[in-house]
Amino acid sequence: MADNQGRRFSCGIDFFHVPDLRVAVTSATEAGFDFVCTPISHPRCKREFIEGPARNRGGLFAVPDALLSGQEWSSSIVGKISPWILPDSVDEATRYNSEKALNQELSYASHLSLPAITVQLNGGSVARLASILNSYLNTSLGHQQVWIQVPLCATNNGNDAVRDTALEDPWGWWNTLRSMCSFHKRLGLVLEVTQALPTDVEIDRWFGEPIKCLSFPTSIFRTNKKGYPVLSRGHQEMAKRFFKLRIQSIVSGNCQDPTKGSNSYFQYLEHVHENQPPLDDYQKFVRGYGDYLQWPLQPLMDNLDSQTYEVFEKDPVKYARYEEAIYLALLDRIESNHNETYYGNGNNSIGFSVVMVLGAGRGPLVKATLRAGYSLQTKLTVYAIEKNPNAVITLQNLKAVEWGDQVTVVSTDMREWEPPCKADIIVSELLGSFGDNELSPECLDGAMKYLNEGGISIPSKYSSYLSPFSSSKLYNEVRDCREKDRHPLISFETPFVVHLHNVHIFSDPLECFSFSHPNSGSGSRSNDRYICLTYQSPSKDTVLTGFAGYFEAILYKNVTISTVPERHSEGMFSWFPIMFPLREPIYVKAESRIDVHFWRKSSASKVWYEWCVTNPYISGLHNPNGRSYTIGL
Amino acid sequence: MADNQGRRFSCGIDFFHVPDLRVAVTSATEAGFDFVCTPISHPRCKREFIEGPARNRGGLFAVPDALLSGQEWSSSIVGKISPWILPDSVDEATRYNSEKALNQELSYASHLSLPAITVQLNGGSVARLASILNSYLNTSLGHQQVWIQVPLCATNNGNDAVRDTALEDPWGWWNTLRSMCSFHKRLGLVLEVTQALPTDVEIDRWFGEPIKCLSFPTSIFRTNKKGYPVLSRGHQEMAKRFFKLRIQSIVSGNCQDPTKGSNSYFQYLEHVHENQPPLDDYQKFVRGYGDYLQWPLQPLMDNLDSQTYEVFEKDPVKYARYEEAIYLALLDRIESNHNETYYGNGNNSIGFSVVMVLGAGRGPLVKATLRAGYSLQTKLTVYAIEKNPNAVITLQNLKAVEWGDQVTVVSTDMREWEPPCKADIIVSELLGSFGDNELSPECLDGAMKYLNEGGISIPSKYSSYLSPFSSSKLYNEVRDCREKDRHPLISFETPFVVHLHNVHIFSDPLECFSFSHPNSGSGSRSNDRYICLTYQSPSKDTVLTGFAGYFEAILYKNVTISTVPERHSEGMFSWFPIMFPLREPIYVKAESRIDVHFWRKSSASKVWYEWCVTNPYISGLHNPNGRSYTIGL
Repeated sequence: MADNQGRRFSCGIDFFHVPDLRVAVTSATEAGFDFVCTPISHPRCKREFIEGPARNRGGLFAVPDALLSGQEWSSSIVGKISPWILPDSVDEATRYNSEKALNQELSYASHLSLPAITVQLNGGSVARLASILNSYLNTSLGHQQVWIQVPLCATNNGNDAVRDTALEDPWGWWNTLRSMCSFHKRLGLVLEVTQALPTDVEIDRWFGEPIKCLSFPTSIFRTNKKGYPVLSRGHQEMAKRFFKLRIQSIVSGNCQDPTKGSNSYFQYLEHVHENQPPLDDYQKFVRGYGDYLQWPLQPLMDNLDSQTYEVFEKDPVKYARYEEAIYLALLDRIESNHNETYYGNGNNSIGFSVVMVLGAGRGPLVKATLRAGYSLQTKLTVYAIEKNPNAVITLQNLKAVEWGDQVTVVSTDMREWEPPCKADIIVSELLGSFGDNELSPECLDGAMKYLNEGGISIPSKYSSYLSPFSSSKLYNEVRDCREKDRHPLISFETPFVVHLHNVHIFSDPLECFSFSHPNSGSGSRSNDRYICLTYQSPSKDTVLTGFAGYFEAILYKNVTISTVPERHSEGMFSWFPIMFPLREPIYVKAESRIDVHFWRKSSASKVWYEWCVTNPYISGLHNPNGRSYTIGL
Repeated sequence: MADNQGRRFSCGIDFFHVPDLRVAVTSATEAGFDFVCTPISHPRCKREFIEGPARNRGGLFAVPDALLSGQEWSSSIVGKISPWILPDSVDEATRYNSEKALNQELSYASHLSLPAITVQLNGGSVARLASILNSYLNTSLGHQQVWIQVPLCATNNGNDAVRDTALEDPWGWWNTLRSMCSFHKRLGLVLEVTQALPTDVEIDRWFGEPIKCLSFPTSIFRTNKKGYPVLSRGHQEMAKRFFKLRIQSIVSGNCQDPTKGSNSYFQYLEHVHENQPPLDDYQKFVRGYGDYLQWPLQPLMDNLDSQTYEVFEKDPVKYARYEEAIYLALLDRIESNHNETYYGNGNNSIGFSVVMVLGAGRGPLVKATLRAGYSLQTKLTVYAIEKNPNAVITLQNLKAVEWGDQVTVVSTDMREWEPPCKADIIVSELLGSFGDNELSPECLDGAMKYLNEGGISIPSKYSSYLSPFSSSKLYNEVRDCREKDRHPLISFETPFVVHLHNVHIFSDPLECFSFSHPNSGSGSRSNDRYICLTYQSPSKDTVLTGFAGYFEAILYKNVTISTVPERHSEGMFSWFPIMFPLREPIYVKAESRIDVHFWRKSSASKVWYEWCVTNPYISGLHNPNGRSYTIGL
């Protein structure tokens, strides 16, 4: 199987009639399918628990478990809950029967260790269904998933006579059910592709949800000249968008042309799946990191290891931009010095610049500085300051082998160093995913005392940005991050570094905190910050689960680096976004206002963030006094 | 001091100028006041942390702690945060100064171990203030309370020029602050009485809030003929309503007539406080139980102790109603038997009735039965069935001493008993605060097999009722109920029996579940129930923190008992309401819809409730599968 988008094509087939499950499984496997969706009970075997002909009917309601091996049941069969089961029916007898039958089928699905079961929703009245499923999810062991099946959009497409047309928002049906089930992590979604295409806003919203499968009814396929099933251009493009989430597919319904067989659908969908542009370097790098939470680095407190240095040194963009910025800064210095008297302005002499690299690591910025100086044929004295003694060994080796006298390696914390002279340019790369979150402001404030008046800091300014997002996946990841012996709120009050994947970012980022160096304010200007950001929610109801954080830095003049999505420095992989969770998902009505407050606070020994949503309703302050998460100074 | 409404009158005096705190405390004590509210820093001692004349001013910002004894500081002084402290000012320098000064004053208040501090709100922009107070509450130890001072209603009454007139809802200011502080239990309220009177809806809403004091500015007093300060009739009535919450008072401002002295205000307020109708028996009984959470009894699982029996037997209403119901049932039997043939209808003969008391306890219902029989001069055979062997001893003693042969004492569980004959009337008192929550339906279902056809059950029907309420106090009580080694959600998924006190019930009760005996349905009819209740919220925004549960029972025909507030059986104290908490308070906009779903579910060995709010937004199912709370069968 081809390895495209990081995941091979996986597809199931959804049978309505399964006269012989053994035969069905064999033929599906031969046609290439990975799994089979089959009713848990025989469609004819409707049970009646109060009265009616089936009340005392003996015999089996489902196929016996000995028909397949345990391995087959637990890996190849998705069980479908009977569609006549309607626990929220307005008819009391139907409700009673449905509840009994549903519990019977759930129990049998559990007995068979099926990997997943599907439950179809027909409208927004789901309270009793939710209660039964929630009990099941909370008591059943193992990894069985409950997949809720809803149409992609609620336009009646012929066979949808059952649908509740009063509530035409399948996302709302799903949201009610999963909210009542407190976002249980074993709840997933099967989206039925409809003849009508959903709008972009509707598609976007599904991206925050735990989609497991896209189900393609055979009725939406067209027939090409050769008689094979194909999708319309619109359906293809939509499918490709969803395939990026690495979901599975399901083909449901009868073959339109029995001579072609179900294999023709499989092959076509596989073709659509594979027919996407190959991964670029950035996509290859991030593959496997999707929605994986990382505790933010604490480079001031902890020493990075060699591998971490190695990975980040490979960034194809960051050091090129730094070199460009250093080049321009040196050039400006040369040009302005030509117009000034010798020794003017307290700077070092023409053609002789002192550059200090603060936090030199294993030397990439020293190299960039030397390359820039070489391009300009200007004389440099470079100081490489590094607090990690292990990295200093590499620096000293580089000095001995390559750099020689023009570089001085200093093994110290930049905040404590007493420099022999002042710098014309200081270069640092202390930025975290949220800009200031690795304490660049505090470190550079401490280092400003050894910058010449009129000297340059690279970077000269950086700002953080925030966007609200919805992600059932990340909400669950944070909830699962709970550590024994620690307060359960801790993970909800910790910003995580994460490559956002199964996420719906629903408003453009707004600027949060900014820092400039040299700091133009008075000496007492604090690095504490506060801001209240107001977002407009999208044109459809959604659920706010957290805020995505980015940064943008001006290295020098027009040389910038950015992780803000629409201006992301192409190919730069050194920073994933940061994510500020919320303790509880917040329901956001269409086109309403979201107010969120962010603080950057500090004490003598640490820095932390606090945050709080106050509109559409108030979330409670997160991380007060840094109780769950701080960054050590 | 008089002991009225369960609490003596307690009043403080609020000084603006305190030239000498020692003198002030002494004179306040002499005038009768219990505590003194005084600025933490000297009003003239405004600090400037950025620049300005005060920047480098030396000396003290507050009175030295040696001025009073530790005992005086910690019991008699309420510290007022300086009114010029505005951390949410639009002016950056003011914000910066305010934050520094606020932290300084908080730190000093903590140093002095003041019992409480007050912070005045001037509008709805409170984010930065909330953040600082929340940090303080989360880090400071001890019992110090933070009292937020807001006007009762936001009409500008002369000296309110500072108030933010754009946001004229002081409840909203408070709600924003305390919600950001996650309903911290050490946050309280001081309500400033205003010249204008709030509407009833506005007053009602405050009743769900943790009010500590009512503050009376001297300016709202009138002068009576003798020259003494008095309140208008409207202010008096309002004050009396609030005094029921057992709050303290504060007199603030200058004496209008210096010859009378501040003592005249104290005496007048004390007079208003004491001038309330004396407590009736019911009020005396419930005193001390206000908002005190009790785990519901499990009389099927646990045996009640003698004291519990003794308390409940004293109910002046319950057994009178039972006697009345038994009387009417016996009378009906006699009358209908007159019209039928001897031995007709399978019942026992005329003038001879078999009455079974199911769960006889220490005998009150046996006594009521015998009294009713005696009044009618009808012959009775009474069976007293009781499963608690300790209570059976009392019953046997009563039989030996008083009752004789007409009573048979049976020591057994009513669900297992094999009776020697069938009953004409069965009498039971198995109802809990929520009607069916002590498993009356299950017990009586089990006992119906020994009721004659056409026989009577007393009670014959009962229904539970629910009302939504708001109570910051109860939310905190439930949160504090958390037990070590158990899941923190457990208390939020447990219905508690509680005498509701500091609570705002904001919608009329709706009927929830009903049960009839004998059960008219088929044998398979389940005692499981489900209902979705829809309430209209009041005309002002509020916060939903839980549901209050009541019951109403038809004992026989028109003889009923009820704990539903507007029809509460007068003087009956056997049942407090039950309370179903919510995991998180839910903000409810004025005149919106509240949907809540309730389930009564059962397994072979237990019964439990589940509940979930779905409007205005979805709360998540509470107590799924009885994970936190069940009633054992």
